[in-house]
Formats: sequence, C-alpha cells, structure tokens
Amino acid sequence: MTKKVKAEIIAVGTELLLGQIANTNAQWLSQQLAQYGVNIYNHVVVGDNLRRVEETFRQAHLRSDIILVTGGLGPTEDDLTREAFQALSNLSMVEHKPSMDKIQAYFHKQDVEMTPNNRKQARVFETADVWKNSVGMAPGMMVTFEGRKWIFLPGVPREMKSLAIEHVFPTIQQMVSQHEIIKSVVLKFIGIGESKLEHELRDMIQAQTNPTIAPLAQDDGIVIRLTANGESEQQVDELLDKTKSKILNLVGHYFYGVNQATLEGEIVELLRKDSKQLATAESLTGGLFSGKLSSVPGVSDVFRGGIVSYNNEVKQNVLGVPPQVIEEYGAISKECALAMAKNAATKLNASIGIGFTGVAGPSETEGKPVGTVYIAIYDQAGHTIREKCQFQGDRNTIRRRTVQKGLELLYNHLK
Amino acid sequence: MTKKVKAEIIAVGTELLLGQIANTNAQWLSQQLAQYGVNIYNHVVVGDNLRRVEETFRQAHLRSDIILVTGGLGPTEDDLTREAFQALSNLSMVEHKPSMDKIQAYFHKQDVEMTPNNRKQARVFETADVWKNSVGMAPGMMVTFEGRKWIFLPGVPREMKSLAIEHVFPTIQQMVSQHEIIKSVVLKFIGIGESKLEHELRDMIQAQTNPTIAPLAQDDGIVIRLTANGESEQQVDELLDKTKSKILNLVGHYFYGVNQATLEGEIVELLRKDSKQLATAESLTGGLFSGKLSSVPGVSDVFRGGIVSYNNEVKQNVLGVPPQVIEEYGAISKECALAMAKNAATKLNASIGIGFTGVAGPSETEGKPVGTVYIAIYDQAGHTIREKCQFQGDRNTIRRRTVQKGLELLYNHLK
Repeated sequence: MTKKVKAEIIAVGTELLLGQIANTNAQWLSQQLAQYGVNIYNHVVVGDNLRRVEETFRQAHLRSDIILVTGGLGPTEDDLTREAFQALSNLSMVEHKPSMDKIQAYFHKQDVEMTPNNRKQARVFETADVWKNSVGMAPGMMVTFEGRKWIFLPGVPREMKSLAIEHVFPTIQQMVSQHEIIKSVVLKFIGIGESKLEHELRDMIQAQTNPTIAPLAQDDGIVIRLTANGESEQQVDELLDKTKSKILNLVGHYFYGVNQATLEGEIVELLRKDSKQLATAESLTGGLFSGKLSSVPGVSDVFRGGIVSYNNEVKQNVLGVPPQVIEEYGAISKECALAMAKNAATKLNASIGIGFTGVAGPSETEGKPVGTVYIAIYDQAGHTIREKCQFQGDRNTIRRRTVQKGLELLYNHLK
Repeated sequence: MTKKVKAEIIAVGTELLLGQIANTNAQWLSQQLAQYGVNIYNHVVVGDNLRRVEETFRQAHLRSDIILVTGGLGPTEDDLTREAFQALSNLSMVEHKPSMDKIQAYFHKQDVEMTPNNRKQARVFETADVWKNSVGMAPGMMVTFEGRKWIFLPGVPREMKSLAIEHVFPTIQQMVSQHEIIKSVVLKFIGIGESKLEHELRDMIQAQTNPTIAPLAQDDGIVIRLTANGESEQQVDELLDKTKSKILNLVGHYFYGVNQATLEGEIVELLRKDSKQLATAESLTGGLFSGKLSSVPGVSDVFRGGIVSYNNEVKQNVLGVPPQVIEEYGAISKECALAMAKNAATKLNASIGIGFTGVAGPSETEGKPVGTVYIAIYDQAGHTIREKCQFQGDRNTIRRRTVQKGLELLYNHLK
C-alpha cells in the first residue's frame, strides 16, 4: 500500500475570522475530495494579513502534499494570496492574457468602465496551470513547488465550485489513482438519540478497524459514517456493505437513507409510490415546510401547494377553519392544527394535508409559552395524527425544529 | 496601548474534515467575540486523532493567549479533546459530581438505562472552572495553563452557544477590559457590485488606516466592514461614524442598514410605517419567500400570509388566476406573476401582493429555459412592478436568488 496523500484547505479572509460568513468552501471541498480518497488533515482560516498568510502557507508546505487555498484572489487591496505565495516561493508572476481579455470583455458588455484594480485578477504564476473561471473573473491555478501541489481558487463559492468541478477534481483523480482507495458511506437515522444508537452498536464500534464507524448528531437526525480503505473499489465496497447490513440488523428501524438522502426526498418518493398528493397549511413556519419540500426536483407530481395563514382571518376566510374551532380551542391547539391540515387537503384537492400552528416567539400567544407547537396530519384514507411538541431555542430554532418534526411525522406516516 | 489579546478557535471533529457539517461554531464565536475586542487570528479544524489534536493544541499554546476548543467532549470513543489536552498539560482529571448527577437524572427521567460511556462526559480537569451545560450533558470548562486560557466547549451548536453566552463572554469581557477597544460596524448595500462599489470608494480605501475599510460580496448583497481601534469606546465610535458618513455620501443610494440588518427586517419596518399589509403567491419558491419574511419577529402585524400554488389547478381554483391568463401567456409569464400578486392581495385582504413564477429546473417548462423567473408586485395604491430575471445555477440557487430579488424589488418599492 502506498503513502496516503495528505491535503489541507486554507481559507484566506478576515471576513471568516470576524464570523461574517462560515467556511462552507472547506466543507464542500472536503465532501467532494473524500470521494477521491484524498485525506484532508486540516482546515485553516487566516486573515488578510501578508505576514500571517505567508506563515500559514509555510506551515502547510511542510506538512501537506496538496494545499488548496480559497480566497484572496479578488481585485481589492486586501486580496493577498498571490503576494503571500510569492513571498514563500519566489516564483514570478505574469498577466494571463485570456483572463485579461475576459475581464475587459465583461466590462465592455456591461457598458461599465473597467476600474484598474480589476487588472490584478489576471495575474498568475508563470509556471502555473491556469484554469479559466467560467462564472467569474479571477482564474484558478495550480502550481507545483518543491514537490507540493498548490491549488488557488477564488473565495466566491459559485466560482470556487465551478473551477473545482471543471479542473481540480479531474486533476486530483489522476494524481491519486495510483494510491489506495478510501470510501465513506453515511447512514441516516431519525427518531433515535446518539448515545442510544451508540449503545446499541457498542460491540461493533469497539471491534471496529476497517471500516471505521463514527456516529454523529446532526440537526436533522443522527448519522453514522463508515469509512473503509483497501486496494480496489470492489474490496472497499464489500467491506462497507457487510458492515452496513450488520448495523441495519440492529437499528434498521430508525434508518431512512444513505449519503445525500433527505427526509423530504424520501417523502416525495413515498407519496409518488402511493400516488398521493400533499397540501400544507402553515402558521408559525410561514412557508418553510413547503419551501423545504419543494427543494426536491420533481416534487410537483405530488405536491399541490399550500396556504400560509399567518393571521386568524386568513385561517378562517381563505383556509376555511371554522371560527368555533378557534373560539373554543384557540388558534394554538391540536384542533386548529387538524382543521388546517384537513382544509388544506380539501381546498387544494389533495389526499393528505399537514398543518402547523404554534408559538415561535418572541412572546407567548393565547397564554401558551414560546415553543408550544401543534402538528397535524390528515389523510383521506382515514388516519389522523395530532402531535404536541415543546421546543427550546429562539424563534428560528423553533421554526426549524417544527419543520424537522413535520418531516419526521410525515415520513413515519407514509413509510 | 497594551498588547492585543490573541485568540484562536480550534474545532475537533473528523466530520468537519469530511465536509459533513460546516464549522458554523467558529463563525458564531468569532462574530460574538469581535464585540469584545478579541482578535481571532485563526480557525483550525483537526480530526479525531489523538496525536494530531495534541499537535494542534501545542501550536495554539505557543501563539495564542486564549484558545477556544469546540467538540470532542461527547460520550463516544472518538471524543478525544480531554485526552489530547492532558497529553499537552499533564493536568489531572476528576469526575465532576454535579454534572454526573445531571446525566444520571436525565436518563432516569427519560426512563432509559444510562449507557456507561455517558460517564465520560462528566470528566473535568481538576484545576478548571467548570460551567454547567444547561441544555446538554458535557459541561464546559476553562483551564489556565502556563498563562494561557484554554476554554473547552461541546461541539453541538446549541450547547456551545448556551455555555458561551452564560459563561465565556462574561469571563472574556472581564479579561479584556483593560486592553484597547476594537469595534467593527458592517454597512450593507443592495443593487451595486463589489468592484463598482470599491471603485467609488477607491480614494478612501487607499487612504485607510483607522478605521480599515473592507468590502465583501455576499449572497444577499455587498457589505463594507469598518474596523476601528482606540483607547475609549467614544473615540472608536467617533472614528466609525465619521467614516460611515463619508461612505454614505458616495454610495448611500444603495445602502439599507448596518450589522445584523436584513432586507426582510427593513421591509417589515417599512410596511409597518406605512400601515400596509402584504400577501404572497409563490410557485417556484414554494414558500421560501414567506418563510424568510416571517423570520422577522412581529411580522404578523404586516404579513397576512400567502398561497403556495405549486400546480396550475391551485393557481386557478385557490388563488383565482384566470384560466385565460395561463392559456394565453403560460404559467411562466409576467402576466401570470401579476395575476398571482393581485389575487393574493385580494383573497388575503392585503394592500400589497407579491407573486413569483418561474422555472427552477431541473428541466425547462413551457419551452422556457431553467432559470427564467417572473416576479410581480401589485400595490392597491396603483403601482405595479413586473420583472423578468434569468438566473444561473442549480435548482436551489435559482430559488434562493429569486427570493433575494423579490426582497430587493419589494424593498425598493417601499422605501
């Protein structure tokens, strides 16, 4: 077995250290690179300071085989990635004509005068492989320096991704193909806690070697990551399949999918299989449940739409909730949630309706404390579900958990 | 002026290096700590490997005054933060009785047998200040070691935040109060590109010293971060105010707010000021626009609700779009968007309606390419806006940009 390729991802930008944005670039790149068997050993974020960027680059050069740098290639004065790498490497820079032509053409087309600082974006290292940026200005590039591969990408996620897909991954695939194969699979669970799940799998986890078994609590449930290595794709797949089967024998009841599977995606599949149509009625979630469900491509086959009734008048006049339900039980009640679910189904000509009502805060409503939520599912086939929840957290946490709980209830109802 | 406090944030967890989650903990902590004048010099992510975590801790100990560590305190075998810090510091650990009692009480209350691995979560360093975790199991703690402050927090965002707010920030405020004051303000703009904005401000940016001026493109517009330092709060505020005024003299036309201001928040304020009520009609965005708007506390005063018409039948029967509009122009048309906006306002008894229709993909609809979007605003007062957009990107990018454009159009209409 050959030496593992060690990689790290460096993000350059003070905006990250001030918390203005999260380092989602490192997340995405890591996710993708794992598929090529590239081991990411570190994510590092450093600010727009020449000396500190250079120091970070120096450390990376000592410990990693592949270094991916995002950010600091833009037109402004605090974009310093090129300068810092030049300080480390002493490599010379030139203007990349195709990039410069593209920048000029862009401004010409927009009929805007090109500001001189944009010229900086076409500067590249003379020995670099330069990669055209098809959705932005600054090109990406790869420089081989003292046996290390240095890859420079813009910080804007859309540009970074486009360059990574078109150039970085194909290049890396070639580089690592002679090395060992590493593959991960993520198993997804809903309705079971992390320590209970780990307890059920304790013997397996203690005996783990290849694949490794790592449980993790996430906002939308618990996942278990299996990572196996071997000398062929087939060997690795067999190792993963065997361990997956053992796990599902123990906790398969809570399992809903692998890798990129989502509860909303599974729900759409189940609705389609049963030829059912869904409609929604949302109060405190204000459209978020429908918005989440409709992120699934092809959802229009099974999703009729919904009514966001942020107001009792709308609940009555548009959704048709009987006034006496609200008078007798209040708008924050399981009776109202069920009436919302049923009327959404009826009005929108769907076989299943789901209704959400509750108190997102900041203050209590109808004497019910912040976090009180009722979710109901109405099914023409005769089943109804009415669930009371008490969530903790701020307004948006409560709304997010409500959406999540709605997905869980609907999935369990359909499966 | 005294020495600046140098801090760094270390996240421990292989799930971050595999890209399963983004390091939003570092983002949030940075955002908060900036307010206390704590300079974050690095974010580092390291995997669940004892030797590498120890190495990362060793480097941090050499360069930083305050080290915040998130993650690796849980019950499972790959939670190694305590062990790594012990390897570095040789400090001894004890079981923290209040935490152990709490863990046992939790399992008792849930009527679930406590698995033995949970006991690990109550282990703390003997000399630490131990902080009770009010929303989870593992306590937080601060250890002073060779003059450095080491702060350990759980990786689950909710638990990390709760401990940070209750214990970390008050502690840090005390520590830094004798140092210089650093303050940032973020100015937010919509409808202007980054390089144009920087060009307009070129002279100011080139002459910048204190405050520094850093423009940044974000998904929801452009921001400029001003960061000033000084010896008193008042001095720093004056520096920031003066520079802000100069900037607004040049590009104030595009300005909409500072710091945590959001377009949706500004829209709710404008609606309230004008005593107007809004209703929505969403097709491709499936409820996301309403969901975003209703994230604003107190929105119920100005937001009636909406209709998600994911289906032409729903557009006609529930929303009341005339069939001949869809027959003649198609559901993907500015005429349909306007009919949706108008009917939403009428049906929901609102003075303003906004309608969204378009092709989110993955395939074209009515012969219109993916990314074609129409947004319309109907205002009882007589104005209407009908905008055609052509967005790039995948399904969810197109939906997100549509929501963003809707906010921009509505804000400009109201202001």
